Amino acid sequence: MSKIIKDRQFRPAAVPNVKVAGFWGKWQDAVCNATAEILLDRCVEAGMVSAIDVEQPSPGIVIPLQPWGGTTQMFWDSDLGKSIETIAYSLYRKPNPRLEARVDAIVDLYEKLQDKDGYLNAWFQRIQPERRWKNLRDHHELYCAGHLIEAAVAYFQATGKRKLLDIMCRYADYMLTVFGKGPGQIPGYDGHEEIELALVKLARVTGNYKYLDLSKFFVDERGTEPHFFTEESKRDRRDLKDYIQKTYEYGQAHLPVRDQRKVVGHAVRAMYLYSGMADIATEYNDDSLTQALEALWDDLVNKQMYITGGIGPAASNEGFTDYYDLPNDTAYAETCASVGLVFWASRMLGRGPNREYADIMEQALFNGALSGLSMDGKTFFYDNPLESTGKHHRWKWHHCPCCPPNIARLVASIGSYMYGVADTEIAVHLFGESTLKCELAGAEVELKQATNYPWDGRISFTINTPQPLSFALSVRIPAWAEDAAIKINNQPVELASVISDGYARIEREWVSGDQVDLDLPLMLRPQFANPKVRQDVGRVALMRGPLVYCAEEVDNGADLNAVVVPAKLSDGGSEVLPDLNGAVAVDIKVEREDVTEWGEQLYRSTPATREPANLRLIPYHLWDNRKPGSMLVWLPSAKE
Amino acid sequence: MSKIIKDRQFRPAAVPNVKVAGFWGKWQDAVCNATAEILLDRCVEAGMVSAIDVEQPSPGIVIPLQPWGGTTQMFWDSDLGKSIETIAYSLYRKPNPRLEARVDAIVDLYEKLQDKDGYLNAWFQRIQPERRWKNLRDHHELYCAGHLIEAAVAYFQATGKRKLLDIMCRYADYMLTVFGKGPGQIPGYDGHEEIELALVKLARVTGNYKYLDLSKFFVDERGTEPHFFTEESKRDRRDLKDYIQKTYEYGQAHLPVRDQRKVVGHAVRAMYLYSGMADIATEYNDDSLTQALEALWDDLVNKQMYITGGIGPAASNEGFTDYYDLPNDTAYAETCASVGLVFWASRMLGRGPNREYADIMEQALFNGALSGLSMDGKTFFYDNPLESTGKHHRWKWHHCPCCPPNIARLVASIGSYMYGVADTEIAVHLFGESTLKCELAGAEVELKQATNYPWDGRISFTINTPQPLSFALSVRIPAWAEDAAIKINNQPVELASVISDGYARIEREWVSGDQVDLDLPLMLRPQFANPKVRQDVGRVALMRGPLVYCAEEVDNGADLNAVVVPAKLSDGGSEVLPDLNGAVAVDIKVEREDVTEWGEQLYRSTPATREPANLRLIPYHLWDNRKPGSMLVWLPSAKE
Repeated sequence: MSKIIKDRQFRPAAVPNVKVAGFWGKWQDAVCNATAEILLDRCVEAGMVSAIDVEQPSPGIVIPLQPWGGTTQMFWDSDLGKSIETIAYSLYRKPNPRLEARVDAIVDLYEKLQDKDGYLNAWFQRIQPERRWKNLRDHHELYCAGHLIEAAVAYFQATGKRKLLDIMCRYADYMLTVFGKGPGQIPGYDGHEEIELALVKLARVTGNYKYLDLSKFFVDERGTEPHFFTEESKRDRRDLKDYIQKTYEYGQAHLPVRDQRKVVGHAVRAMYLYSGMADIATEYNDDSLTQALEALWDDLVNKQMYITGGIGPAASNEGFTDYYDLPNDTAYAETCASVGLVFWASRMLGRGPNREYADIMEQALFNGALSGLSMDGKTFFYDNPLESTGKHHRWKWHHCPCCPPNIARLVASIGSYMYGVADTEIAVHLFGESTLKCELAGAEVELKQATNYPWDGRISFTINTPQPLSFALSVRIPAWAEDAAIKINNQPVELASVISDGYARIEREWVSGDQVDLDLPLMLRPQFANPKVRQDVGRVALMRGPLVYCAEEVDNGADLNAVVVPAKLSDGGSEVLPDLNGAVAVDIKVEREDVTEWGEQLYRSTPATREPANLRLIPYHLWDNRKPGSMLVWLPSAKE
Repeated sequence: MSKIIKDRQFRPAAVPNVKVAGFWGKWQDAVCNATAEILLDRCVEAGMVSAIDVEQPSPGIVIPLQPWGGTTQMFWDSDLGKSIETIAYSLYRKPNPRLEARVDAIVDLYEKLQDKDGYLNAWFQRIQPERRWKNLRDHHELYCAGHLIEAAVAYFQATGKRKLLDIMCRYADYMLTVFGKGPGQIPGYDGHEEIELALVKLARVTGNYKYLDLSKFFVDERGTEPHFFTEESKRDRRDLKDYIQKTYEYGQAHLPVRDQRKVVGHAVRAMYLYSGMADIATEYNDDSLTQALEALWDDLVNKQMYITGGIGPAASNEGFTDYYDLPNDTAYAETCASVGLVFWASRMLGRGPNREYADIMEQALFNGALSGLSMDGKTFFYDNPLESTGKHHRWKWHHCPCCPPNIARLVASIGSYMYGVADTEIAVHLFGESTLKCELAGAEVELKQATNYPWDGRISFTINTPQPLSFALSVRIPAWAEDAAIKINNQPVELASVISDGYARIEREWVSGDQVDLDLPLMLRPQFANPKVRQDVGRVALMRGPLVYCAEEVDNGADLNAVVVPAKLSDGGSEVLPDLNGAVAVDIKVEREDVTEWGEQLYRSTPATREPANLRLIPYHLWDNRKPGSMLVWLPSAKE
């Protein structure tokens, strides 16, 4: 067992220790009142629960095998796992004995399903038992285990019930015997990363750091030679050329992870791997991993990320393509990938607040991730294009239902992403009406954040502490917030004098009632893309605070691409929309090409005439919540 | 047998009656010197010739069955057919006994393969004999027959050899017994149209008009109820829901053809159907077909055609999507589809010259079709995008090699598309150095066209006739040719006084040596797209005469989308490029966004700075003939 180095500084606030209201409160209500139960209902309808019930006959192959050699049915354990995790978090906000009882029943089924040796997997126990551990590259076997571990940790923390946690510890103990470089052991890792970050959670909650070692083993082995996937294929008598994804880049197994500098392959896999790597870097104080992570971070955010924080433009590999290739209408930008980016960014804050990570976390969260969930919590985007001709709508369910529980579990646990807590410091990474409770230097401290953010940029923090207490409060000042201003107990503070890595770090002896007021002016900001992004040439995107805005047909009529945004933005007012969760819509004055005057022909030698018009913009994450129609983020722009 | 009405007016000039030189001469040389033999070589390599050799064992399924229920191997007869057709035309220009002998040997193999009843199909005789006539919807059975008929007609006309023609007549005679509404007959038609236009050719060359009736039967039955494809599926015990294309629009069988107004489905199928319909409309003087054809024409050219004359934007159905949906980088725009558009346009000229059709014929021919062939005649584009990031290149061959022989047979027979001949009128549809010989009012007339078109717009026609002869010469004045001027024997003629449907119609008694001079000023013309075409918003395409121009990386460096074309074009000169077939390259002054100044980040609040630059443009059809790299047709434009 390795010597464990304690987290350097910051751990996310525990989920139950943050009570959210306002913006996130509404989203959590949607999850508590609708999504949580819907997830379970859909899992039942899909046959996932009867699939693990040993009292019932094996379901057999319900979803046919696909050209890649497997079926999404192989991921059913992960869908159940993420649904249980969502429900676990939801119970903090809204106790729900009926829903909790349903989860308990599922846990009982898993208990009965588990093999004596600890193995647990619906597919490989009930449908292809002869294929256990035969194709880690494709079959998501450890991926499923990882999500059940995350569920077990969350459900234990939320309810105090240990049964699922014990089940997953038994399974992890069994894995410790199966994987390794010893005789008869499997010197490999899973094609779809997830087990790595899950084992870190398991180690942290149980204090059994052997699970960390296993996680580190998976991270360290990935991509080394002789290549595990190649050796495994040979053992399994699979033709190496038959690999439908063609390259091990697909699962970030093309190089040892410490040598990786370019973000490649399947986007969700990449985010889960980097999250696991960041955890291991923190736990083992491993700077060789940090170097790789920082290079990968720069690669992603400077060359491969949509302005929404969406990542992975291509459907073909559900992932990355070429640098600066960011098509808007065909953007895959899977909800899970943006959720994964939030996971990764959050873990990059483990060694201290740095807005380089937190700004992107906020951008991905408020745009590319949150768009995956409808306002009522009942329907879901899988892919998140930045332009739609009106045919793209949220699903009730998906043949690969990975995204619904992923965005739901993130929303339901959002408090833990808002705050980081160290021994004598609180970091505020995200803004939103909420109250944090935490232990600081041995004392119970409460930090109340009062704000109507992201609709309003005024944020007021109030400290509650049993006695005067010295600690630092680090508050993120987003890079976009020009002219941000901060006051302590109504006294202005010169921001430059307290800023560190983009956070205003205020260290003092705090007493109850101390107040910090932050003002982040929310102006509509034009955003232009690097000229290398050919899809955004001649176009402008508009942001307000962390929110990307878009134009929808329901407000503006069809032919949104006929709009021309003037070089100098001119305000047309704003309006609070009660039917969109109280969102602030913004109006600007534009010109529009006259589609009527143009007539029928396709091409002509003179450009279209234009007329003045008003354009209404709403937050991107709220699109497709009203009347269906076309949508556009990158608006044609008159740059001169 | 129906009463045949003679072609109303114009038939294409017979291929051997037009001798081309200049621009088209070079392309025909490429086909004669390279493509013709390459096609045959590749067919042999693919196994297509041994597949029809009854002395050899059946090849079996070489190309596996695909999700649509068939394989491209089912089309092998069509690939051989189009290759033979190409070779036939090539023999006019360049006799080639060795190549001719190879075709003769293939014809002998087909003779031996043919069933006693006349049936002939490599796949259904040698691989799935039990499936003959079982799935017309998907299996291309009559499509293959059609291409072999076209080959037979061309080879007979070129060589006088009747063997293949007789084989195909026997097959067509057999079809006449198989198809119809009588007892035991099949009341159906093929999913991939082609047989219709082929049977018209067969009727015309043999004078056996029963083949016309069969063609008309196929046209008339298409899309009627009870639906043949549905009835056929039931008989064949196929699940109707298993139809991978989901809708009969795919093969234009969703409605009776006379009720069709919207161009839908697979683009090549559509063009072949409309070509057949136009032939039948001409032969039967059927105005009910003409009405549909004119509506379909408008629908295509006003709502669904790339500026290159490329059609069918989507790979998924190799065809049409929504109105105004014309993505440039992912454009499918199959070479075969633009070739098919040339076929259709040419047939719309059967009842008289009309530049509405001939202008589009020229546009599709010089751009979207011709781009399918490399300058040396050795490599081929299947899809023809209008933007490339540098990864799109011509193939040596394709798994579905329909396009190489299709563009080759068009180039090799281009003379017949240039001229239409009626009893007392010659129509000049296309310009290019050439000499037409034809019979007019009983006399042999020669029309010589001297020009360096399309590089130069000056065209000089000289008439040669044994005695003074009264007839009309109709010369197309392209709609794009502003300030076109015409002279007869050096005397200017007021164009407005002689124009009819866009043709200058000069009716007089001509004597040998009479000369008509046409001047079509070739200025670089900006072209803007309808604002409904979202992909071309804020962009301009540049044309010169019939040619679409593009920018290539080899001339202009990378990041072509960083170019900004000024609202007012400013000439930067032009240059004749000997290494590009003597093409005229055009230079313009532009601005370019400064990619270097921008730095690393993806997004920022100020647009890129710009600097003046020169941009070299070359004809689109010649791109990817030099150093591989990116390419762009629709250039970012500063409209104000």
